[in-house]
Amino acid sequence: MKPSKSTFPLNAWYAAAYDVEVGRSLMARTLCKQKLVLFRKLDGSVAALEDACWHRLMPLSLGHLQGDEVTCGYHGLVYNAQGRCTHMPSQDTLNPSACVRSFPVLEKHRFVWVWPGDPAKADPALVPDMHWNDDAAWAGDGKMIRVKCDYRLVVDNLMDLTHETFVHGSSIGQQAVAEAPFVATHGERTATVTRWMENIDAPPFWAGQIEHSLGYKGKVDRWQIIKFEAPCTVNIDVGVAEPGTGAIPPGGNQGDSRLSQRGRGVNGYVLNTISPETDNTCLYFWAFARNYCLSEQRLTHQLREGVANIFREDEHVLEAQQKAMEDHPDHTFYNLNIDAGSMWARRLIDGLVAKEARPSVIPIQAAA
Amino acid sequence: MKPSKSTFPLNAWYAAAYDVEVGRSLMARTLCKQKLVLFRKLDGSVAALEDACWHRLMPLSLGHLQGDEVTCGYHGLVYNAQGRCTHMPSQDTLNPSACVRSFPVLEKHRFVWVWPGDPAKADPALVPDMHWNDDAAWAGDGKMIRVKCDYRLVVDNLMDLTHETFVHGSSIGQQAVAEAPFVATHGERTATVTRWMENIDAPPFWAGQIEHSLGYKGKVDRWQIIKFEAPCTVNIDVGVAEPGTGAIPPGGNQGDSRLSQRGRGVNGYVLNTISPETDNTCLYFWAFARNYCLSEQRLTHQLREGVANIFREDEHVLEAQQKAMEDHPDHTFYNLNIDAGSMWARRLIDGLVAKEARPSVIPIQAAA
Amino acid sequence: MKPSKSTFPLNAWYAAAYDVEVGRSLMARTLCKQKLVLFRKLDGSVAALEDACWHRLMPLSLGHLQGDEVTCGYHGLVYNAQGRCTHMPSQDTLNPSACVRSFPVLEKHRFVWVWPGDPAKADPALVPDMHWNDDAAWAGDGKMIRVKCDYRLVVDNLMDLTHETFVHGSSIGQQAVAEAPFVATHGERTATVTRWMENIDAPPFWAGQIEHSLGYKGKVDRWQIIKFEAPCTVNIDVGVAEPGTGAIPPGGNQGDSRLSQRGRGVNGYVLNTISPETDNTCLYFWAFARNYCLSEQRLTHQLREGVANIFREDEHVLEAQQKAMEDHPDHTFYNLNIDAGSMWARRLIDGLVAKEARPSVIPIQAAA
Repeated sequence: MKPSKSTFPLNAWYAAAYDVEVGRSLMARTLCKQKLVLFRKLDGSVAALEDACWHRLMPLSLGHLQGDEVTCGYHGLVYNAQGRCTHMPSQDTLNPSACVRSFPVLEKHRFVWVWPGDPAKADPALVPDMHWNDDAAWAGDGKMIRVKCDYRLVVDNLMDLTHETFVHGSSIGQQAVAEAPFVATHGERTATVTRWMENIDAPPFWAGQIEHSLGYKGKVDRWQIIKFEAPCTVNIDVGVAEPGTGAIPPGGNQGDSRLSQRGRGVNGYVLNTISPETDNTCLYFWAFARNYCLSEQRLTHQLREGVANIFREDEHVLEAQQKAMEDHPDHTFYNLNIDAGSMWARRLIDGLVAKEARPSVIPIQAAA
Repeated sequence: MKPSKSTFPLNAWYAAAYDVEVGRSLMARTLCKQKLVLFRKLDGSVAALEDACWHRLMPLSLGHLQGDEVTCGYHGLVYNAQGRCTHMPSQDTLNPSACVRSFPVLEKHRFVWVWPGDPAKADPALVPDMHWNDDAAWAGDGKMIRVKCDYRLVVDNLMDLTHETFVHGSSIGQQAVAEAPFVATHGERTATVTRWMENIDAPPFWAGQIEHSLGYKGKVDRWQIIKFEAPCTVNIDVGVAEPGTGAIPPGGNQGDSRLSQRGRGVNGYVLNTISPETDNTCLYFWAFARNYCLSEQRLTHQLREGVANIFREDEHVLEAQQKAMEDHPDHTFYNLNIDAGSMWARRLIDGLVAKEARPSVIPIQAAA
Repeated sequence: MKPSKSTFPLNAWYAAAYDVEVGRSLMARTLCKQKLVLFRKLDGSVAALEDACWHRLMPLSLGHLQGDEVTCGYHGLVYNAQGRCTHMPSQDTLNPSACVRSFPVLEKHRFVWVWPGDPAKADPALVPDMHWNDDAAWAGDGKMIRVKCDYRLVVDNLMDLTHETFVHGSSIGQQAVAEAPFVATHGERTATVTRWMENIDAPPFWAGQIEHSLGYKGKVDRWQIIKFEAPCTVNIDVGVAEPGTGAIPPGGNQGDSRLSQRGRGVNGYVLNTISPETDNTCLYFWAFARNYCLSEQRLTHQLREGVANIFREDEHVLEAQQKAMEDHPDHTFYNLNIDAGSMWARRLIDGLVAKEARPSVIPIQAAA
């Protein structure tokens, strides 16, 4: 058996939880094969420790939180929020090695982000931009699902939306998505796929949104601007507008325009960040934010559940694909035009992984 | 870990389904570790393709059938019934390598047969004779069960019916089956075990049949003529007749006599063909055909369920045996007299497997 | 993969069942990775045979018991209680090698003990002393649970009762158990941990017992005298008494004193013997015997269920620990003061295992 190459970089911020999931109790979660226990300290900030007691590896998440300290649920070793053991049963002297790893953690845009790699490199500026998730100009909600597949398959899925036609035919899919041309570009940490569908019938999902919001029925211009940020975040600018009302600005839309620049229409952001749990499972955090009917709680609820149904269709496909790939471990894959975006995403991920790889054998050159 | 020797030949017809199971929808089935998608074409014939899209290995069985073409349920690649890709999303030029394997397939005697090996060798004449399954002189019905064992254990089970005494005591088992002598013979692709039990009490199953059919109560002559055809088909001529009425013809019965030559009695065929799914699971197709009371639908129903109950007893034993063998991977087995038939069957299977094995390293002899 | 060292000696008596579990039917049980079939003979004594027919490995426990003989449920081979095959179907001559292993077995102190190792070494005197389980001066009851962990983790658990404070806080745990000093000693096959807690509040469990038995409320002296007998038996002398009434005899208590020497109090024995089933599962037999209110059936019932609830808390912890250890196969463990008793127990187990290990390669020294 050859050693398997890592499928993810460690030096990155990964969403570990929605902010509301972490409170004054101990929560177990696995990120990048690392078992973590998360809890909120008395000052409201979040701590993330290795979820294995130094003594007998008992998961600390099965223990007790008191103040900012965690007591192991087996023999009562106590750890502070930095992972240092502060108490042992029946002895006064503490072994100086007695500690568990603590991980850099911060909260931003409604997610709790953990850095599984070198703490010295944990730059807060590297957290991906998902501001639509807590911006007053946008309204929305999301969920986390655990998908039994390599997180990169979810990235592939999002970087090529032609699959909407075949997987999501009853909601957002339509023939145009598989037929309209698209443009794929990339930067140092990002890859972007842009697809414009002009003067088409809106698919059921968007037809409902534009009618509800603007009372409009009829043909639309539709857009999908997919932006990947390595290693695992994909934010998609989506929407429809009345044809020819300026939805397509001269020189193309860079994905950051406001609705007013696009003419009369509705605009949403599908926010996705997918954290590898193991090599073949992942935590998929998503949200759908919109810039219309902001105060309608019923619509927020309805959209969250509607999008959840769509993502369940993806989950079914992704898990079938993972299983098929495991059945064919040595398969060589061919790429189609539609894979351009995911190929760039994969290349950026591979680059981050390669940067972290250390040669295990250093070849020694003999003198001439 | 040493490479495991194949347990089945690939160049053979294997039952993949009962004819009625395959219709105008996509059906997944695994034969000889090969995942297949089966469907009936517009002309009524059956197609069998590899169940993995050329692009991302998505099972085609999760896609859609339109006309004689299959559309992948992920990215919409379309394949014709020969496995050739005829359409790709968002591109006009098709990659010339884009295809999936298609397999020789035919229907005969109520089964859909697939040839997983070299298509050039797929001779229709090699389909085993199971004509009792659709012969107007016989009536019956059957089922398919998935058994979690090596298909050869089912063959062993059928080649030695002494187990009826211990496994099926309440229906077809009786002490005589374990005591009466038997004769085992073999040909190039077949092995036969013949057992005659003269002037005995009929076991509950047969006592019921002969009374229902002929109004007869009392001692019987009973026969079991088991015929194996490599690699995995076992047809068993079974029945009881009034003692001394000619059931046992001079010179022995070759299993092809008609009931009239056997005297007053009832005759059935237990038809079995067992397709390896993996090394330790199989698809067991069976039917029970009789030559009496042909028009009694109630009897057909009753016999099918009665035999299904008997085969559930076998299933229990076979899965326990498989598990025990996996617990003792290096066990050496000893054979008893009763194993004569299954030993011949195994030898014929091994011969077919050996014929297909290719040396992976060709030794090179150094010059002298 | 390096060959795994055995985790248990074979030359030892292991509890295979409570006496009442074994009757006139076939019972399967696994001890030290050896599958057994147990049954009670016509004379009332118990037989233990290898649970795999010589012919096709069929578990004999799925067969039939007739008299003192077992008939295999597949092909009807018959074995006597010594494991010798006495009948084969359809043949008169029995293969002389046809037998299954039989194991030394005896009953003592309410358990059926089996010796999986060399029968010549099966000395009845080596059965651990658990006489409280059928001594008229004591009353009690117990259960068997199957725990998904290495049996040695249960031994560790019992050798250090500080865990009561953290795992069993609502019943027998209290801060004093984690704080009071203890003494660990050992002999050739035994290790003992003694802990005295003087003039403390009784924990809920014991407060209830002493009030029920003696009408006493108030401070108590509490003791725990844990005695391990290699490889897997741990009997614990526990109880509370009115402070200063003589519970702590001069010179220390050796665990064999009678209640009367300890002053006014209540005394129980927690009897535990843990049989390895596989490397990561075990059969945990326990009982709780008391020397007060002997005739109260209701109390016996209540104590059995109460202790069962406590042991379920352990089961939860032990299975989490096993899983964590499997996730960290190369982890080096550090020991605390509280591990003194289990370190001795482990050392005694390792000694027994080492004594049985045979060098698989004998180095041959070349002549000089």
